[in-house]
Amino acid sequence: MILQKPALYTDLYELTMAQGYFLYGRHKQTANFDYFFRKLPFDGGYVVFAGLSDFLDIIQNFRFHPDEIEYLRKQGFKEKFLEYLQDFEFKGTIYAAKEGEIVFPNEPVVRVEGNVLEAQILETVLLNTLNFASLIATKASRIKQAAGDHAVVDFGLRRAQGLGGLQASKSCMIGGFQGTSNVLAGKLNDIPINGTMAHSWVQSFEDELTAFRTYAEHYPDASILLVDTYSTLKQGVPNAIKVAKELEEKGHKLVGIRLDSGDLAYFARESRKMLDDAGLEYVKIAASNQLDEYLIKSLLDQGAPIDLFGVGTKLVTAYDDPALDGVYKLSKINGKPSLKISENEEKVTLPDSKKVIRYFNDDGSFYSDGIALIDEDTPETIYHPYIAHRSTHVSYFESEELLHRIVDEGKIIIDSPSVEESASYAQERLSKLNDEHKRFDNPHVYKVGLSRRLRELKVELIKNA
Amino acid sequence: MILQKPALYTDLYELTMAQGYFLYGRHKQTANFDYFFRKLPFDGGYVVFAGLSDFLDIIQNFRFHPDEIEYLRKQGFKEKFLEYLQDFEFKGTIYAAKEGEIVFPNEPVVRVEGNVLEAQILETVLLNTLNFASLIATKASRIKQAAGDHAVVDFGLRRAQGLGGLQASKSCMIGGFQGTSNVLAGKLNDIPINGTMAHSWVQSFEDELTAFRTYAEHYPDASILLVDTYSTLKQGVPNAIKVAKELEEKGHKLVGIRLDSGDLAYFARESRKMLDDAGLEYVKIAASNQLDEYLIKSLLDQGAPIDLFGVGTKLVTAYDDPALDGVYKLSKINGKPSLKISENEEKVTLPDSKKVIRYFNDDGSFYSDGIALIDEDTPETIYHPYIAHRSTHVSYFESEELLHRIVDEGKIIIDSPSVEESASYAQERLSKLNDEHKRFDNPHVYKVGLSRRLRELKVELIKNA
Repeated sequence: MILQKPALYTDLYELTMAQGYFLYGRHKQTANFDYFFRKLPFDGGYVVFAGLSDFLDIIQNFRFHPDEIEYLRKQGFKEKFLEYLQDFEFKGTIYAAKEGEIVFPNEPVVRVEGNVLEAQILETVLLNTLNFASLIATKASRIKQAAGDHAVVDFGLRRAQGLGGLQASKSCMIGGFQGTSNVLAGKLNDIPINGTMAHSWVQSFEDELTAFRTYAEHYPDASILLVDTYSTLKQGVPNAIKVAKELEEKGHKLVGIRLDSGDLAYFARESRKMLDDAGLEYVKIAASNQLDEYLIKSLLDQGAPIDLFGVGTKLVTAYDDPALDGVYKLSKINGKPSLKISENEEKVTLPDSKKVIRYFNDDGSFYSDGIALIDEDTPETIYHPYIAHRSTHVSYFESEELLHRIVDEGKIIIDSPSVEESASYAQERLSKLNDEHKRFDNPHVYKVGLSRRLRELKVELIKNA
Repeated sequence: MILQKPALYTDLYELTMAQGYFLYGRHKQTANFDYFFRKLPFDGGYVVFAGLSDFLDIIQNFRFHPDEIEYLRKQGFKEKFLEYLQDFEFKGTIYAAKEGEIVFPNEPVVRVEGNVLEAQILETVLLNTLNFASLIATKASRIKQAAGDHAVVDFGLRRAQGLGGLQASKSCMIGGFQGTSNVLAGKLNDIPINGTMAHSWVQSFEDELTAFRTYAEHYPDASILLVDTYSTLKQGVPNAIKVAKELEEKGHKLVGIRLDSGDLAYFARESRKMLDDAGLEYVKIAASNQLDEYLIKSLLDQGAPIDLFGVGTKLVTAYDDPALDGVYKLSKINGKPSLKISENEEKVTLPDSKKVIRYFNDDGSFYSDGIALIDEDTPETIYHPYIAHRSTHVSYFESEELLHRIVDEGKIIIDSPSVEESASYAQERLSKLNDEHKRFDNPHVYKVGLSRRLRELKVELIKNA
């Protein structure tokens, strides 16, 4: 994590509210907040939850340092409150889904319990971290789904949203990518890094052949030659073949060629033929240039013989839907369940401390999710959040709870998941999500319902308000 | 700047190429690279150039530290090259437009001169920094344009793309915003921070009136009360009026109310009436909720009496066009002009060291831009980049060059512009851009042409290739 001092990476109102609670003596009231999102990104059917390990780092480092206190003093914060902040540590308890879990709208993915001040003050940095990481992990998983067994690598750093590129490169690994071009992301997260040459390398030599030869000389076992600087089929591929043959003579093998412009399906097919005709069946073809899940699917549907896809802008910015709408809402205050009313029925929040139950079919696939009060038994019937007559009897085989305690009275009690662990968990869980929820066009809506008691509590609180 | 060690925030291929140049003994060849973009974002008519001060920080801190060298060693980089990196400092020369300058497609905005290794190795971090900052400054300037004299404040951190939110909050100030909710951005860049309360504040009290009263008690001169937690017109505004009256009795004034849901035009009109009827003409109305330039324009066209707009997701992610397509291309190598050919005529790059000339009308407004070779006199005729018969005689009043030397043989020779300076320069320059280039629908294309010599050189190099 690059943000060593996360406490001020927040909206000012978290701090003005915190001071308000403190000065009014209300900061010791207990509160619960839920993190959840309302709308699935990319018109898709699911979200891959990510960002948890970064969030744990934030909890770990959440202190107000002297320079930060001084800044707040200049902003007019009161001395008494600043004294309190000086010794502030988060002492609450946090439950969260595992990183890599497949999650759905309206179900709590994280629950923060603590005093109202410490729980409130985490809001912005929690949202900033989890929303973006989950967005990119989800986008990456869609791209990986389109690519199937073909490798996908992140090339997006140059168009990423500033330092967000660091988190994007990590999150795309959780979503199923095989590597990234981003060196710092590789160093910080122990993930594989990839990359060979740009057009400028080729341009900087008298001719393309010399450029390829020089590169291959220095990287005899790790060269992917970029063949489209001049003419892909007339020059680039023939030169790559020459160099591949020269490498063979020295006992090495050219790894691949890369196509970065033009009709990738056509150039891949023609290049494959030329390589195969030269006995270079082992030389791989990499392709890049504004790829996303739809283009990759189209290329593979056309039978384009591409082995590796480099994906950039569309991945790291989640180009077609660049924000996840995750929110952080108060569900309990001072021991009493609370909700936020809205004229828009979908925006009314769910009160009280809740658990999320995943029901499984007998083949191990996900059946549906239920949200219940924390002290309830696993419900056998789940109810639509607000449409009165809709309910489902759950004929499930097994069930499990999705939220696990990760922080206990301020102490982190789990090992922070590695990128590899989270990626492998995501892959395992995605394999249990039926295909109809994963397809790109009009995915089938995965059912998430409430227990009877939770729905009754919600209705009662709305009536009282 | 939060990225203290920027050298590894790069694509791996910059480093594999650098090693290739080094081992081949080519790293002392001189090279020029241009930073420019091809497509205007948001179907708009201009870009506000930003990110320069962050880029200067990067140049300043561009070193390879022992832990970074060690990481590269593990990736298989060679000892000789690592030794070279250990002492590496950028010793080249950089020309750039002023931060806040209004710039257009295909014209160089930054030119980097140096040896090919040091110029190449800056590519990714330069692109990452300048693309995003310019994108957000441009988006912000459009939103500010829609808002006119009404204040606009950044509320986007929770949905920003991770740490990119830090750069977004800075860039939106350069584009004309009045403040941000982002405390860390405020601290690092000395920009005004804003914010009062969330719905959870109101929910955490027994009732709304007590919540408002408590807040006003602690912030008697800085309260903006959020009035839509329960019922805006039946409860929220009447309670705000009560509290405003109580504040008046104590010699204070309520700053404003905030609307965050529902029909903002309707609620603003009704709230204004209620406030005015209570003699509270001075109480301002702030509005937020998924705003962008189009919604703000629509609200103001409807006469909605809104004084301050809080803008979030759509601003900080540049939601409708979340990446600027800026590129960094080799234009000269070893003293010889170079270009990148493409089957797509628009993608053929411009060779050699170039200057950018801005021509002005006699009323001080921008007339057009010309790109010429560095040693040319100001051209009187400019030519279309590739359509043979198109040229324009430039009947201008004055002209000036847009690129200024900012780094001289490794030494930064300008003071890094403050956010305030860059914002004020952007505003001044935008006022000189005629309205037809600034409108949202089909803006008139601003003319950018080449000198005759530059176009001839380009044609010659294409023929030779």
